[in-house]
Order: sequence, then C-alpha cells, then structure tokens
Amino acid sequence: MTTAGISHFYIPIPLLFFFLFLFLSSTPSSPSSPPYLHPGTGTAEIESETRSLYSEILRDEAVARLNDLGKVSDADGYLERTFMSPASVRAGILVREWMEDAGLRTWVDSMGNLHGRVDGMNASAQALLIGSHMDTVVDAGIFDGSLGIISAISALKVLKSNGKLGELKRPVEVIAFSDEEGVRFQSTFLGSAAIAGVLPVTALNISDKSGVKVQDALKGNSIEITEESLLELKYDPASIWGYVELHIEQGPVLEWIGFPLAVVKGIAGQTRMKVTVRGSQGHAGTVPMSMRRDPMAAAAELIVLLESLCKRPREFLVDGGNCNEYSLESLSASLVCTVGEISTWPSASNVIPGQVTFTVDLRAIDDVGREAVVYELSNQIYKICDRRSVSCVIERKHDANAVICDQELSSRLKSAAYTAVHRMMGEIQEEVPVLMSGAGHDAMAISHLTKVGMLFVRCRGGISHSPEEHVLDDDVWAAGLALLAFLESHT
Amino acid sequence: MTTAGISHFYIPIPLLFFFLFLFLSSTPSSPSSPPYLHPGTGTAEIESETRSLYSEILRDEAVARLNDLGKVSDADGYLERTFMSPASVRAGILVREWMEDAGLRTWVDSMGNLHGRVDGMNASAQALLIGSHMDTVVDAGIFDGSLGIISAISALKVLKSNGKLGELKRPVEVIAFSDEEGVRFQSTFLGSAAIAGVLPVTALNISDKSGVKVQDALKGNSIEITEESLLELKYDPASIWGYVELHIEQGPVLEWIGFPLAVVKGIAGQTRMKVTVRGSQGHAGTVPMSMRRDPMAAAAELIVLLESLCKRPREFLVDGGNCNEYSLESLSASLVCTVGEISTWPSASNVIPGQVTFTVDLRAIDDVGREAVVYELSNQIYKICDRRSVSCVIERKHDANAVICDQELSSRLKSAAYTAVHRMMGEIQEEVPVLMSGAGHDAMAISHLTKVGMLFVRCRGGISHSPEEHVLDDDVWAAGLALLAFLESHT
Repeated sequence: MTTAGISHFYIPIPLLFFFLFLFLSSTPSSPSSPPYLHPGTGTAEIESETRSLYSEILRDEAVARLNDLGKVSDADGYLERTFMSPASVRAGILVREWMEDAGLRTWVDSMGNLHGRVDGMNASAQALLIGSHMDTVVDAGIFDGSLGIISAISALKVLKSNGKLGELKRPVEVIAFSDEEGVRFQSTFLGSAAIAGVLPVTALNISDKSGVKVQDALKGNSIEITEESLLELKYDPASIWGYVELHIEQGPVLEWIGFPLAVVKGIAGQTRMKVTVRGSQGHAGTVPMSMRRDPMAAAAELIVLLESLCKRPREFLVDGGNCNEYSLESLSASLVCTVGEISTWPSASNVIPGQVTFTVDLRAIDDVGREAVVYELSNQIYKICDRRSVSCVIERKHDANAVICDQELSSRLKSAAYTAVHRMMGEIQEEVPVLMSGAGHDAMAISHLTKVGMLFVRCRGGISHSPEEHVLDDDVWAAGLALLAFLESHT
Repeated sequence: MTTAGISHFYIPIPLLFFFLFLFLSSTPSSPSSPPYLHPGTGTAEIESETRSLYSEILRDEAVARLNDLGKVSDADGYLERTFMSPASVRAGILVREWMEDAGLRTWVDSMGNLHGRVDGMNASAQALLIGSHMDTVVDAGIFDGSLGIISAISALKVLKSNGKLGELKRPVEVIAFSDEEGVRFQSTFLGSAAIAGVLPVTALNISDKSGVKVQDALKGNSIEITEESLLELKYDPASIWGYVELHIEQGPVLEWIGFPLAVVKGIAGQTRMKVTVRGSQGHAGTVPMSMRRDPMAAAAELIVLLESLCKRPREFLVDGGNCNEYSLESLSASLVCTVGEISTWPSASNVIPGQVTFTVDLRAIDDVGREAVVYELSNQIYKICDRRSVSCVIERKHDANAVICDQELSSRLKSAAYTAVHRMMGEIQEEVPVLMSGAGHDAMAISHLTKVGMLFVRCRGGISHSPEEHVLDDDVWAAGLALLAFLESHT
C-alpha cells in the first residue's frame, strides 16, 4: 500500500467538475493529497482485530482465486474469455468448485450461466441474488466481473465457516453470468438478460465473426437451448427479493478520493452503433485527390466530429429543440464516446478502400440527453457524407437506458461498506462515496426483474479493460467484508 | 464500344488542370464530348483490313486468356493472387503454356519469375525484355499486370504465325514477374528488383502476416533460393537492349481524351509509411473525455490532416524552406495520398484502444516535392501527437524515386501505338498522348538495369485495383497491335 501513485495523479480542471458531479454525497478529507486509508494504522487492538476479520478467506484466498481465474484464457499471453469459449467452460468448472466449497448447491442453466444457491432458514422466501460476469474483453484485466463473483463466494464461505450459512433469513443465490461484455456476439448481457426475461428469442440466431450462432455455441458445449427453454429461464419476480452486484469502479474517482468502496447511485445509459461508409475503391496512385470518394478520409472526419461532439456537446446542441428536456450540465459531465473497432475493405496499403466500418459506443447518465446526442451525431454524419459523396449507413446495435439503483438497497449497501471499512481501519471520518457508473453492468439487465443495488471497488488509475487493471489486496478484502456485512444483515 | 459512359463523366475544375498537366503532348479533338475512335468507321476497305489485323489472336484469344487468368484466385468470389500463393503457381503454369504456344523457350527463376524467350536471328545480340506482373491486390481486377504479359505473348504468337519469329534482329524475352503489388510481404517488386539486381538479400527473410518468410514461400513451391543464387539472378546490363512494359492506365485520362493508348513519360515516386499511435487503453464507459489519451481519435485527426496536406500542399508548404527546389504547381497536380489499412488493438467496441496502426501511401512526380511533403507531414503528425499526449512512431517502409522513361524507346513506342491505332481506325487526327504514371510499375525496378519505356491502355472510369476494372476488347486488340508494331521494328 502506497500513496506514491496518487501524488502524481493529474486532475485537469474539467475533471474536477466531472468528479464533483459524480461524487454526490461525500468529499475527501484532503483533496490536495488524497489519503489511502490504512488498516491497522490505529492501536494494537485494531491490528489484532484485523487479523480476525477472515483475511485468509476474504483477502488471501480471494486474491489467489482472482489470479487463478485470470490465467484461464483462450489466448496466449493475454486474457480473453468470451461467451462459451473453451476458456469460459474451464473457468466455469473452477468457479463451480469454489461455490461448492462455500456450501452452495450449483447448476448451469441453458444460457451457460453458473448458479450457486443456499436456501438458508426458509427455502420459499424471496431470494437475494448476487451476481457478476465470467466473460472478459480481449486483452482484459483479471478483476472485471470476476471480483464480484469471487467476493460473494468468499463472503458465503465465511458464513459457512462460522456456521451461519443456515441462519440466512432468505435464500442467497450467486450467479456467474456467461456474457456481459458482448465481445463474441456484439450483443451484451446474453446471460443476465435471459434471467431477467428481456433477451429476445432472436438472440439465439446471432452469429459471431466465424458464423457460429449463439445456439450453436451452447450446443458445442452440450447445452441444448430452444426458444421455449430460453423463455423458461426468466425468474419469477415474486420469488426474488433483490439483486446486488459488486464490481471494480473502472474509473479513477475512488482512487482520487482515497476510499476503497462506493455505493452506486445509477448506471449510465448506452447506445452502440455501427457506421459503414462506402466510397469508390481504386488505385492509390492514379486517382487524383479531387476526384476521390475515399471512405477512409470520410470515416476519419466522422471520428474527429464524434470526439468534438462528446467533448463539447454545448457547441453542437445549444440551439437544438430538446434543450429544455435535459441538462447540458449533466450531459457534458457524463457523456463519453468511443470508437474501439475500425476496418477497411479490401485493406491493402496501395488501394483506396471501397468501404470502412467502425463502431461507436456512446454513454450518458441522462437518457434524453443521450438521445439528443445520437440524433445530432447522425445528422452531422449524413451531412459530411453528403458533402463527400460517400454513402453512410448508421445501425443502432444496442440501446440501454440508464438505471437508477434502489434507495433502500443502496442504503443497506452503504451501511455494509461503512461497517467493512470501519472494521478494517477503526474510526473513520469519511462517508462512503456515492458514484454514478459510466460502465454497463449485469444489474442493468436484472433491473427489469427486481430492484438492484451495487458496490464499487477502487481500482488503480481507474484503468480497466486492460492487463494494467489492478485492485489492492486490502481492497479485495474490503469488498469481501462489505458483502459479508450485507449478508449478515440477512441473518 | 459506346460513348455513353463518357457523357456522364464528371470532370471537376481542378481535374482539368491535373489532366492538362499529365497530357503533355496531345489535346483531344473535342474536349466537350471526347470521342471514342471506332475501328471500321471508314470505308469498306478499312473494314476488310481490320479483319486481317490478327483480331483472333490479338483480341479474341487475348480477351479469353485474360478472363481465364482472372479466374485463377486464392479467394472465393473475388480475385486475390499474391507472391507464391497456390493460385500464383497455377497462374504460372497457364501462362507458361501460352508462352510455349507462341514459340518461346520457358523457365522459372529462383524468385518465381516466369521467362519466355526467343533468340531471333542473333542469340548473342542485346535482348529486348517485355514484362509485367502476375500477382494481384486483394479483390483485384483482371487486367492489372496480366494485360502486359498476355499482349506480349499474343504479339509474339502473331510473329510465329506469319513466320517472322526467326527474323527478329535481337532476342526477345517476356517476363511475368512474381511480385509487383507487394501485398503478401508489404514489399513491392520482389520479382523485377531481383532481376535488376536491386533486391537486398535481406528481402529473403521478410515475413508475411503468418510468419512465413520469402525464402520459405519459395521453398514451399520447390524453389530453393540462397543469398548467392539471388545475386546471380541479376542480368548483365551489357546483355540487355532495353525494357518495355504495357499496362492499363489505372487512371481516367485516356477515357476522357478518347484514345486507346498512351506513351508514358515517367513514373511517380512513392513513399510508403506505417504510423503507429499508442495511447492509454481503457474502459469505454468510465474514462472522462477530458482525461483520455485515445489513439483512435488521434489517428483520425492525422488522417484528416494527411488528406488536407495532399489536397492543398500550398497551404502547408508555402512557407517551407524548400520552396524553390520544386514546383508547387507540379506537386499540387500530381500528389496523391492514401490510407488503405488501419487496425486497432485490442479492437473491441467497448474498449478505448491502446494502439492504432495505419498505412500511408504517398506519391508525386517530383521527388524533392515528395520529400518535402513527407517532412511536413511528419512534423505535423508529431505536433498533433504531442498535443494529445499520445506516442507516434512513423516508419518509412518503402521509397522509390520517380523514373523518367527513355526518350528513344518512348519515341519508338509512340510510333508503334500510332501505327496500331491507324491500322485499326484508318486516318486519325490525334497524336498519341504522353502521360505520367501515378502508379508504380516493374519498369521502376528495371530502370536500374536498362532503359525503359511504357505504353498505357485505356481502362473504364480509370478504375483499377477493383473488380470493376475493365478494358474494352478492342483496346486489348490495340494493345497487342502496338506491341506487334514495336516488335516488327526489330525485324
């Protein structure tokens, strides 16, 4: 544990506004030098207490399991684990062993989700679901998704170890979702949306880049799914009490504040689009610049436009008709846009491409504001394409509205997070921060089924979707302790 | 034959300047409605004469062979034939049969070039080389490269058919080069550069995308090459009289002028670069816009800059120190820049890329001017990358200076082209146009060995490197007749 990384942390002025916006209910004790909270910095008694806080299970074993799971990859040299890939299946076997080790009854459903359940005192009471995802992006970190699953299993293992698993007032079910990132099929939440009953049956026929369909990918792993069995996956809302997800923040705010945990107020809405630009394919040496209809140059101009629009929405939307329906303030603070994939056809250095395709990922906390940005972006794209005499097609591939977390659940999670940090560090002055999430989570899909609440865990530099992703061992511990405290409120 | 396509041909004002610049020695008879010249539009005698102009060999058979060769592809549904690929080997077998059918002695050298030679009256006289390339780009047309090989074989077949093959004053050798496009190994002229003695021995160790080296690709087809045998491939300049290449124009000028053939004055110089932009990889939802170091947005800005610089070099170079060393006029008219390939890592729609790589293909008739553009481009790229806090690396992958064709050879080719068109059409008013070539050709490499001359053949819409590439049957005929007339001047 060190604060060295923090003192170099550069915060541009616009970011201060961003952080102030996100960080709604708490202020750091010393913004100029944000402190890490150290466990055991108090008295000898506190040190002794920390040793008894199940550090072997909640920290040491959990960290070892995160590392083990992080080695289960389809790629050599980096982490890649997509829906129903060989590595995903191996990961499922590993996590299933850990669930059973924690005293959970396990099964895999027909969308490849892995479940581990304990009935507690009343098997017919409304169940608490705790979940996160097992799949990863390409060249991923080891904490995204996995931390939420492993922390939940570890917390339940503690209850088993101290004999309280049977005292739970309601059934608790941990779900390791089979797909959240949507890398393989370009369609997020295949796992959690099925359980929430919001996955259309047409999803079974979506194809990956090799032409393999979702249904075939499952069948290749001996899981038969039909349209009927997909519909049967939906949980009965009356049987569920609520859903909790713990996840790394994937952003830099907690590190800047100097606090290991936060409660999530809500999740930003998303739009994913595919833009295809078609021009006139030709020889790189013989078509004069003034005669070209070059889709690559056009795509580059569109990407520059996208960045400008998302950095400075005021310049584009100030005269729009929708100005009164959303706050340009909140939009400016939360709007983020990304082009992650781009390809040309035929892709040779000496050929003017005939076609360029790229993805757009657009997120904002304000749904009306996001819609206004998509509308303005589309208008501007068509204008530029007209001027360049290239044809542009914009496909909306995915839309998810923002989700606001349940107040009561959030209040309980906040208490649990406070209890965890208090147990580790002794007396603390800070409140538990309340953040918005710019990243999508399975909780978005599950919000269609039941009330949801989320906890965030600090990650180094806010870096995620990268091998540089890192969570301090003690923050893994804090995460496990918080879920334990939350579960204890159900005993 | 029809002029319908022409009447729709849109010529922007800047292009007129471009065409005037390129079209140095001839003006169309009617610029507002450029005429196609029709064979047999004169008297009955002329019609009778055209039938005797070997149309079966030079037109019908040549067109059939172009279509046959165009079907020899490594890909399903489009034409792709790269250095030493299975389709390239099959293409070589086919062309070898045609060479032998024309009375040529054939062999394949240790860089995979296919040779067909006839000694004529004096086997020890300086030889005339006629060549073009057998490889193609991805999703190619059927005329690029192949037309030059097939027209030469057809012209020699005519000489064989009328008993004049033995009357040639000097040996004539047709060479079908194994690589000109450089698609597989990102290194152009593997075949012709070896014969010219300008291919470095290190080229044998260049790897393709699968890690296969040039040497291994040859070995896979039972061709053993060593550094020593590569050096031995170089022809003795004293044994060569000159080199002639016939090629499709790959640009729109001949179609606009309305003439089937042109003589090439020179070939533009080329620079090929690879630009790698590295930024900070991260989650698409959680890194605020103001905190990003996004290599995709940076690359897009660089590509927009490249297009502006190449469209309007005056705006960028007017204050440069090199202004007096080259003509901004000629540079503006001939400069073309292309980004044909781009890729992101890790390439997922919800990840801000960590790295983006793209190619730059830059060509100009003026070598000093091209160098000034590369210098200014590099400066501007580094400035933008600095401002965006991303790291940019520019690698120069290939440079070729402009080549000026030999005057005597060009003059003979011009006469031959005139003779061909005159034979086909009767009396003509037009001079044979003289053009510059924006595309690279094997003649560039062979110019290091001997004097070179080139003929261009009109192609529809100027489109090349595309399945839309097309040459009229009668223009294939004109091409064969021109080479025949040129060969007859050696009998």
